[in-house]
Amino acid sequence: MKVVAGEFGYVLQDVPHLRDYIPNLPTYPNPLRSNPAYSVVKQYFVDMDDSVPQKIVVHKDTPRGIHFRRAGPRERVYFASDEVLACIVTCGGLCPGLNTVIREIVHSLDCMYGVNEVLGIDGGYRGFYSKNTIPLTPKVVNDIHKRGGTILGTSRGGHDTMKIVDSIQDRGINQAISRCQVYIIGGDGTQKGAAVIYEEVRKRGLKVVVAGIPKTIDNDISVIDKSFGFDTAVEEAQRAINAAHVEAESTENGIGVVKLMGRYSGFIAMYATLASRDVDCCLIPESPFYLEGEGGLFEYVEKTLKENGHMVIVIAEGAGQELLAAKNEQDASGNKLLQDVGLWLSEKIKENFSKKRKIPITLKYIDPTYMIRAIPSNASDNVYCTLLAQSAVHGAMAGYTGFTSGLVNGRHTYIPFNRITEEQNKVVITDRMWARLLSSTNQPSFLDPKGIDEFKKDEGPPTQLLDDTRDSGDGKNGNTNTITNEIQALKT
Amino acid sequence: MKVVAGEFGYVLQDVPHLRDYIPNLPTYPNPLRSNPAYSVVKQYFVDMDDSVPQKIVVHKDTPRGIHFRRAGPRERVYFASDEVLACIVTCGGLCPGLNTVIREIVHSLDCMYGVNEVLGIDGGYRGFYSKNTIPLTPKVVNDIHKRGGTILGTSRGGHDTMKIVDSIQDRGINQAISRCQVYIIGGDGTQKGAAVIYEEVRKRGLKVVVAGIPKTIDNDISVIDKSFGFDTAVEEAQRAINAAHVEAESTENGIGVVKLMGRYSGFIAMYATLASRDVDCCLIPESPFYLEGEGGLFEYVEKTLKENGHMVIVIAEGAGQELLAAKNEQDASGNKLLQDVGLWLSEKIKENFSKKRKIPITLKYIDPTYMIRAIPSNASDNVYCTLLAQSAVHGAMAGYTGFTSGLVNGRHTYIPFNRITEEQNKVVITDRMWARLLSSTNQPSFLDPKGIDEFKKDEGPPTQLLDDTRDSGDGKNGNTNTITNEIQALKT
Amino acid sequence: MKVVAGEFGYVLQDVPHLRDYIPNLPTYPNPLRSNPAYSVVKQYFVDMDDSVPQKIVVHKDTPRGIHFRRAGPRERVYFASDEVLACIVTCGGLCPGLNTVIREIVHSLDCMYGVNEVLGIDGGYRGFYSKNTIPLTPKVVNDIHKRGGTILGTSRGGHDTMKIVDSIQDRGINQAISRCQVYIIGGDGTQKGAAVIYEEVRKRGLKVVVAGIPKTIDNDISVIDKSFGFDTAVEEAQRAINAAHVEAESTENGIGVVKLMGRYSGFIAMYATLASRDVDCCLIPESPFYLEGEGGLFEYVEKTLKENGHMVIVIAEGAGQELLAAKNEQDASGNKLLQDVGLWLSEKIKENFSKKRKIPITLKYIDPTYMIRAIPSNASDNVYCTLLAQSAVHGAMAGYTGFTSGLVNGRHTYIPFNRITEEQNKVVITDRMWARLLSSTNQPSFLDPKGIDEFKKDEGPPTQLLDDTRDSGDGKNGNTNTITNEIQALKT
Amino acid sequence: MKVVAGEFGYVLQDVPHLRDYIPNLPTYPNPLRSNPAYSVVKQYFVDMDDSVPQKIVVHKDTPRGIHFRRAGPRERVYFASDEVLACIVTCGGLCPGLNTVIREIVHSLDCMYGVNEVLGIDGGYRGFYSKNTIPLTPKVVNDIHKRGGTILGTSRGGHDTMKIVDSIQDRGINQAISRCQVYIIGGDGTQKGAAVIYEEVRKRGLKVVVAGIPKTIDNDISVIDKSFGFDTAVEEAQRAINAAHVEAESTENGIGVVKLMGRYSGFIAMYATLASRDVDCCLIPESPFYLEGEGGLFEYVEKTLKENGHMVIVIAEGAGQELLAAKNEQDASGNKLLQDVGLWLSEKIKENFSKKRKIPITLKYIDPTYMIRAIPSNASDNVYCTLLAQSAVHGAMAGYTGFTSGLVNGRHTYIPFNRITEEQNKVVITDRMWARLLSSTNQPSFLDPKGIDEFKKDEGPPTQLLDDTRDSGDGKNGNTNTITNEIQALKT
Repeated sequence: MKVVAGEFGYVLQDVPHLRDYIPNLPTYPNPLRSNPAYSVVKQYFVDMDDSVPQKIVVHKDTPRGIHFRRAGPRERVYFASDEVLACIVTCGGLCPGLNTVIREIVHSLDCMYGVNEVLGIDGGYRGFYSKNTIPLTPKVVNDIHKRGGTILGTSRGGHDTMKIVDSIQDRGINQAISRCQVYIIGGDGTQKGAAVIYEEVRKRGLKVVVAGIPKTIDNDISVIDKSFGFDTAVEEAQRAINAAHVEAESTENGIGVVKLMGRYSGFIAMYATLASRDVDCCLIPESPFYLEGEGGLFEYVEKTLKENGHMVIVIAEGAGQELLAAKNEQDASGNKLLQDVGLWLSEKIKENFSKKRKIPITLKYIDPTYMIRAIPSNASDNVYCTLLAQSAVHGAMAGYTGFTSGLVNGRHTYIPFNRITEEQNKVVITDRMWARLLSSTNQPSFLDPKGIDEFKKDEGPPTQLLDDTRDSGDGKNGNTNTITNEIQALKT
Repeated sequence: MKVVAGEFGYVLQDVPHLRDYIPNLPTYPNPLRSNPAYSVVKQYFVDMDDSVPQKIVVHKDTPRGIHFRRAGPRERVYFASDEVLACIVTCGGLCPGLNTVIREIVHSLDCMYGVNEVLGIDGGYRGFYSKNTIPLTPKVVNDIHKRGGTILGTSRGGHDTMKIVDSIQDRGINQAISRCQVYIIGGDGTQKGAAVIYEEVRKRGLKVVVAGIPKTIDNDISVIDKSFGFDTAVEEAQRAINAAHVEAESTENGIGVVKLMGRYSGFIAMYATLASRDVDCCLIPESPFYLEGEGGLFEYVEKTLKENGHMVIVIAEGAGQELLAAKNEQDASGNKLLQDVGLWLSEKIKENFSKKRKIPITLKYIDPTYMIRAIPSNASDNVYCTLLAQSAVHGAMAGYTGFTSGLVNGRHTYIPFNRITEEQNKVVITDRMWARLLSSTNQPSFLDPKGIDEFKKDEGPPTQLLDDTRDSGDGKNGNTNTITNEIQALKT
Repeated sequence: MKVVAGEFGYVLQDVPHLRDYIPNLPTYPNPLRSNPAYSVVKQYFVDMDDSVPQKIVVHKDTPRGIHFRRAGPRERVYFASDEVLACIVTCGGLCPGLNTVIREIVHSLDCMYGVNEVLGIDGGYRGFYSKNTIPLTPKVVNDIHKRGGTILGTSRGGHDTMKIVDSIQDRGINQAISRCQVYIIGGDGTQKGAAVIYEEVRKRGLKVVVAGIPKTIDNDISVIDKSFGFDTAVEEAQRAINAAHVEAESTENGIGVVKLMGRYSGFIAMYATLASRDVDCCLIPESPFYLEGEGGLFEYVEKTLKENGHMVIVIAEGAGQELLAAKNEQDASGNKLLQDVGLWLSEKIKENFSKKRKIPITLKYIDPTYMIRAIPSNASDNVYCTLLAQSAVHGAMAGYTGFTSGLVNGRHTYIPFNRITEEQNKVVITDRMWARLLSSTNQPSFLDPKGIDEFKKDEGPPTQLLDDTRDSGDGKNGNTNTITNEIQALKT
Repeated sequence: MKVVAGEFGYVLQDVPHLRDYIPNLPTYPNPLRSNPAYSVVKQYFVDMDDSVPQKIVVHKDTPRGIHFRRAGPRERVYFASDEVLACIVTCGGLCPGLNTVIREIVHSLDCMYGVNEVLGIDGGYRGFYSKNTIPLTPKVVNDIHKRGGTILGTSRGGHDTMKIVDSIQDRGINQAISRCQVYIIGGDGTQKGAAVIYEEVRKRGLKVVVAGIPKTIDNDISVIDKSFGFDTAVEEAQRAINAAHVEAESTENGIGVVKLMGRYSGFIAMYATLASRDVDCCLIPESPFYLEGEGGLFEYVEKTLKENGHMVIVIAEGAGQELLAAKNEQDASGNKLLQDVGLWLSEKIKENFSKKRKIPITLKYIDPTYMIRAIPSNASDNVYCTLLAQSAVHGAMAGYTGFTSGLVNGRHTYIPFNRITEEQNKVVITDRMWARLLSSTNQPSFLDPKGIDEFKKDEGPPTQLLDDTRDSGDGKNGNTNTITNEIQALKT
């Protein structure tokens, strides 16, 4: 990782650049200079030194800590407009906004930089070598942001990095030098794949930019404020929760169970619960729970039914996996294949109440996953996707590579791949956001005092989004330690 | 303004506190300590020294600049739970999320702090002295977030500060000392009124907290990231733009005109345009335009009709007011009464094309204003409103007063009233966000080179929201000057 | 059944009336006479002889056939306003519009007839004797039509008719004579229960009206045009189909499977498919299918994937039950408990393609059932529910009993219970509506020539709703035979 | 008009047929015979004698009255598949469902009858001779039903019948005989135009079918049950009414005014009011009202504000036109140009209360017209449009001409042009449906006793849709007179 230090503890975790390994690259003036739309702009080009701090809850004497390079257009670019061949690929599961990102990469390249050769890779990583490409023009992509899914198709796992880089290299052959920009839209696994592709491209010394755009409906990508599509997903999840609430209310001892996305992190479940206010219990992967006995889920369900006559439970798909009989299966992307915890929980509750305890309940189980994933992005996500895409294009044209375009504290930045992939973003259950949730649902913490202490010891990454506790004020979380070490390293 | 200075140019613009003018106030341990929901939290209480910088696009040697006090619960509170009488008032026009804010203030007071006496003031400021109050309990407000509008009612202008403070003072009389917390939800004018109320309260030495929650669907409040309801409004505006697009497409030389909210600032128009991608021209108050002649609107309309056969124009309600015959009327809040610019523009276009130029056009005018304002807030705004309300309650319980609860760079903070009211937030048309818009619509800037230069000289507050150009990197905008001056003042 | 014959083959299948078994009942002038809202009406009261034909596709020499009594207010009523005690009960599963029906019964009784004593029965039939009642006033029910579900609660099966009639009888005891109107909203089983209650009431000679309002989201009630909530359900089902389409399109060999309601009849699946146009295969209970071999489902799936790369399958919950391992379980209402055919089909397809045939597919299964049932009714269903409720109230006040309020050929009528319950409405797969569906999806009929012949022999009730083939023109379906026999019987 | 009489007063008002004026036309077996989708159908072809009665509320001795020919496929067709050139044109204002009708005509011709030559006429009637045509294939129209508007474009008025028929004649010239099918989708004026085109075609003896599909969002076309798009419009109107309700509720003396479509008939206003239940006053063209004095609107507004503090008024665009200063302008279709009655009413109310009476009110005016017209049709309208289109195609292939495809008592029929255009469908304010509305809003009838009597004398066409009073039972309305006369004529 390229690191730059400054005064008062300032650290910049920089991203790679083509000139790091290709010397003497020619540069060109940024074509935006002559773009009429930008004629009014006071200072269009981002200052080379602009950076954005990762940690912004500070004391008057806190050292400045880690920063990221600010995204945006640069005065000089490393590609001539007619030289570029851009490729766009989408990988992994669907997420609202994929088509908007595709549309805006194409539009930015065309309208801002005059780049006309853009190819869509069909069906994910494998499409680089096993399928025909799809020519993308502003006209082709003009209305795609109004549709869900991805017009490029997607797939999971099982790709061959060498073949991908071969394919990238080949596409530029007629000009003796490869001149590709590869835009890779995908989640954690995809970004790891992008990092490996970047390493191979660098090893071969190709003039090829590898730019990532982080995609995860679960919001489990670290460093960034939130992932695109998340807002849309939380909004759409309200429908399912409303339905569960109506079903539960309309029968005696009615229970509505809603399973939401969240393989390893419970952000959608947590935010959907906070936004709805109709949920009595929210179960997420980060917060273990148990069914039987004192302080367990069954006890809480019984108490709630007695008091209110009905209840709504939201469960993230990855919650309580430790309670299910473990199977070690994985999907094609290498994700652990999860048993359907919603069905399992529904069965368990029915068994306990209807069969064992002879308390008649009516349980309705709703799994809106695919109805949420497949909708078009809302207005807020549309604007967000637009800026993410533009930032990626500005960075690629400026010669940056091996980076992910990401929002940090409301500012668009370039983040080195390893910072994105080194850990997953999770709900920190010792954080105030989760306490807010517990307070809003009145559910127990499912933790005994000993468990609580253990959890408090953990040095997890803090909760994100609108949370004002993202950085605990004590300067003692893991990242800060890393920072301090780096600062020490730089100083010595 | 209370100002605290620190190292490396750090400045804290602090908010007032009851103990500033009432000595020897007793304090109590924060009841959250014994709240089971918070038992898991690692560090629940916000550190007294936590602050959030206003400017976060920095260089490695940039001085640290202005900070605001971080919102959140404090270890000790200045009110006993059974002592508090809270009043909530909503003023000005409707905005999605008003009911959510009301709901969450009531819930936070009740569930977090055990405060049971909460009164709704009926029909805005005047309701303090001219109407009966509405008792608010968690049960009363339980489902109100699913409805648009405000259950408290609202009104504009014409209030008597003395009578309001009399009323506040009287309500606490039986306990010898007033013990009110006043939560004021409203826009620019309302926050100015709140500042005056706070001054009078302070003059009388009352133990009364005055807390503001900024409300403006136009997003024209300065300092804060964005106002609640804005996301919902931009989302709902898409419907009108879609309809205009369909109407325009279905006839020869079809023109759809959509008027959106934005009295002095064009944020809704700008974001709705960027999110939609179906708009060919966006007119906002910040960017003057003219109709006739070279580079004017008529020329652009004619060109667009010739090329595409149809077009969509979005116009903010305050755009082009200088072109309309000036009338100096004001509404009850003292806002300049605007003529309906959408009707005016539609007439002018029809006149020019159908009558003068004999080019047959079909123009459809849509004004969705009240259909947008009146809807319930979406999930994202619901969560935002919840955190705003909780922050306000935490601040009031901790004895802070004369503050507005506001989001700064994604963190919740307390901002002194004067920073909120000293200027309005506007779209900076020399900023990249507006350039993005021009680039997406292909509309002209309506500025001659001389005009451009003049605009560039202006030291306006930069564009907000997701924009990464919020702070221009050159450290030369007005705020920074103020900072520097303050720092100088503090140093000397 | 009361039957009246007329000229040219006219038959009226009449409904019972209180005076059939209680002689000398006093009558009163209809209070609507003095209602200002009705002062303009030319002929407000329905003529005693008005009737509506069941069969309206006719030849110039077709006999006139079965008619039903037209619904509406009568000149004289059999209850004094202050005498009536009305009870409303909702039974069975949720359906959009339940709350609207409840609201409008209460409003009609109050505003049209001055009846103020209306009780809601809590939680279905059992609530008559095992729960407290809920007093219903126009104010209480004012906004309930905007919510899904039923504010009265509902339950399935297991009621004791004697206890119900005891309870009804008791409620009127203080006035020596029972004077109840019982409004029963529910499906096939519920209407059968209502018929039994009516018989017992009649046996006891009580002045108690038993009026049914048919409720079935599946539209499987015979005689009537369509059931309330059906339109809303078909509309909402579009969301799930759209999502399945997007998911399928976005992967190679993507298959989206949507399960829709329809235990014994496939109307929702058929209409949702016709409205959407994105479905490649629609499977319903009425049309048997098979998986393997020539002309089977797998063959069709393989062919469609080869041609289009993806496909969407809609399956009604009762389809293909004969293929699943039979279990003879029933729910509390006595409905056969169905295995989840959607999960079963998804498994079978995955097994066949991914495992056996090694053709990689990506299948996404969506079950939107509870998200559809729980929404509020749309505008069209709201108006429909209003008229159904008003018709029922007019009939009850006029002394009719043992009837169901139902729409026949667009006119509101009173239908004897036995006509409603004698058979279920089903999709007739030898009818043009199903042919339209086959034509729109291009799916095979899954029938061998022999099967087709057998089907054609069946004398099923014809397809309903907007279908113009409801009555086959040949005068040879079962109902017509019945008619002819009855006419013969009457003539002789 | 072709009329066929039968027993017991049966009258068939038949539609013209090509063989009426072209003798010895060859016929072909219907290609549906060999369509696999129809192999299961028991009796696919409509019996030549099938007809549907217009009046179905009958007594046991009522004569049978007017019938229309039932729509559907015939055994033999009058066009060979490869012979047909079909043209589709859309005229007048937008209406949800236009694209669905276009799509389904194309699909029916292609999939059912193997007709591949289908042309879209660009921009309404004039497009026949002034514009290029748009080739329509199943692929081109595949997704258009998900979009609002019309892909063909539309326009109003000003066409030249001779040029249209010339153009139709010319297109078939290379085959010596014209062989067009012209599908005309439009409202009252458009159907009148179609009748003239048909007459000219007949005069020239062309083998050209002229088929109409009635389009009017106002539902003001007579004879048919309801027009397509009406359901969608009523549904979408709920949004505006909800918004008006929220705005009104949130201020003291808040008044929400919503203008809805309805130039000459108030169906949308009436049904939207009945569906919403939030409306306090509904004003329609059929029911005159006045502002000042006893029993006037101002009195009612004042009373309602005093009682409820707020109110919602829905006004159809054609209501109260006699009160506005008359201007005799017409739009290009010859429709009277209406002044905006919503703006006018809003001004009048403000003037009366705020200025004259010094009662402070807050009035918000919402005009959702174009937001309603431009949305895609809902599921129910989609199915309806599909059947309308298929009926038209079946009729055209079978050689019928000069007809409109229309739904009569839930059955699809062919109706002679003159029956469609001879009068407009209007809300009958002496009918029960309007009484229901008055009862639901509690508004006055705005009629003095004398006015009421006068109204009752009128012989207006009765209210349609779900109304069970469509035919008053007394057999005394105008249509019946016509029938009786015709019967007399036939008998003698």
